[in-house]
Amino acid sequence: MDTITTLDKTNEKVRLNAISEAPPKGTDKTAAKKELEALGEELFDLQDLLWGARMNSVLIVLQGRDTAGKDGTIKHVVGLLNPRGVSVTSFGVPSEEEKEHDFLWRIHRHAPRKGEFAIFNRSHYEDVLVVRVHDLVPESLWKERYGHIRDFEELLVEHGTIVLKFFLHISREEQEKRLIGREQEVRKAWKINAGDWEDREHWDDYTEAYEEALSRTATKRAPWIIVPSDSKWYRNLVVARAVTEALRPYREDWQKKLDEVGTRKKAELEAWKKGR
Amino acid sequence: MDTITTLDKTNEKVRLNAISEAPPKGTDKTAAKKELEALGEELFDLQDLLWGARMNSVLIVLQGRDTAGKDGTIKHVVGLLNPRGVSVTSFGVPSEEEKEHDFLWRIHRHAPRKGEFAIFNRSHYEDVLVVRVHDLVPESLWKERYGHIRDFEELLVEHGTIVLKFFLHISREEQEKRLIGREQEVRKAWKINAGDWEDREHWDDYTEAYEEALSRTATKRAPWIIVPSDSKWYRNLVVARAVTEALRPYREDWQKKLDEVGTRKKAELEAWKKGR
Repeated sequence: MDTITTLDKTNEKVRLNAISEAPPKGTDKTAAKKELEALGEELFDLQDLLWGARMNSVLIVLQGRDTAGKDGTIKHVVGLLNPRGVSVTSFGVPSEEEKEHDFLWRIHRHAPRKGEFAIFNRSHYEDVLVVRVHDLVPESLWKERYGHIRDFEELLVEHGTIVLKFFLHISREEQEKRLIGREQEVRKAWKINAGDWEDREHWDDYTEAYEEALSRTATKRAPWIIVPSDSKWYRNLVVARAVTEALRPYREDWQKKLDEVGTRKKAELEAWKKGR
Repeated sequence: MDTITTLDKTNEKVRLNAISEAPPKGTDKTAAKKELEALGEELFDLQDLLWGARMNSVLIVLQGRDTAGKDGTIKHVVGLLNPRGVSVTSFGVPSEEEKEHDFLWRIHRHAPRKGEFAIFNRSHYEDVLVVRVHDLVPESLWKERYGHIRDFEELLVEHGTIVLKFFLHISREEQEKRLIGREQEVRKAWKINAGDWEDREHWDDYTEAYEEALSRTATKRAPWIIVPSDSKWYRNLVVARAVTEALRPYREDWQKKLDEVGTRKKAELEAWKKGR
């Protein structure tokens, strides 16, 4: 049985090169697909309770290098959920208006409301990653952001948000394969981006930036999960597992609240029927 | 072969009682499920082109009486799409801030951006339905809204939005069955709403309000589709069919644009590789 690599101690050193991008030996693809299906059903069910109880919300942050599988995770894992109560936001280059605010302003407005899931395809972490690698703001500025990020996520947690941050971990070789794959499929050529190849030349800079970002912003209540992502089926499984495991402990509370609401509503209905 | 009831002539009389809520005779549930699956694949594919080409967007409005299946349609039809590029908005009782604006203000901000789907679970139509039945604003005010709605939807269409409005049509008997069903499932009691029973007493008022709303806001470019909704499987099929048929004619244009983008991006990549 493989385990999920979770980082939840702030400032503990992270060495990405020491963590495998491949599924653990002995992991079986057919079994993984079966497990994913079962997790999908459990998640769907948990989501219904989350939605009804309106005590909590869920924030899923997806980060990773180009081609690491952020879109694929949305398609195959987020796709298991009921679209009612799920919002997916992709954070690209900030707009003029966004640039005139602090870096968390555009993020905060997409935080999930009670009962809902918010999925971030890239996020506020780009402001300590791409911004650092490409020198877009002075070091003194991005260095301060780790603290702001921890505080911001703590604010969400205090409000009942379950925060899960995923780093989709792929190897350099796998990335090359995927970039070349896009070039060769004629009908997928529109997905090509010369910038992705350019960014590959900063591979080590990104490794350093990620290692520091993960380390500085990993907390007990807003942990990072490292997802070996060279195999898509294993990546999907790990994300689905982590989300399900994070929600499972809430089931009883949510159900209890819903039973109370149900009892109250039944009484209201009886009263209304009698009063007619 | 059954056909879809589409209203696209403004001010043409609508008689809901003359339209069946049940699937047409001879419709086969197993065949319907198979067709839904195939439509799901086609839609998923069309969505990818829509997303990449960024020439159009899609707005799906779901209206219908309580228990007509708006949530179920979202779960089973919208659930076939890639959650990236889909936003679902449920419009309930307006907030204080929303009430201090015109009735389209809160709606407009959720209009889909190019490449995306927006799904409205209830919509601006409530402002000529519930508002009329419960006398929430003077008649002179809601009567003016039909014209505002037509103009608003035309604005979206001119901007490239494909607008599809679905009326989920259920019978009085089927609604009663579904309301009682909720009461009897202990774990679903939290979904009970005495207001739903109360609204049933206004059945005919709603019929009248819907008939006028459908008639006054049906246009060639923003049609209403009447969905027989007493059977969930048939409802899902009709909605999926109507959406797929509306998008299909765009496929060629989208693909053409994407092939152009692909050619340009390939050239950019080659140039970059040479320049290194």
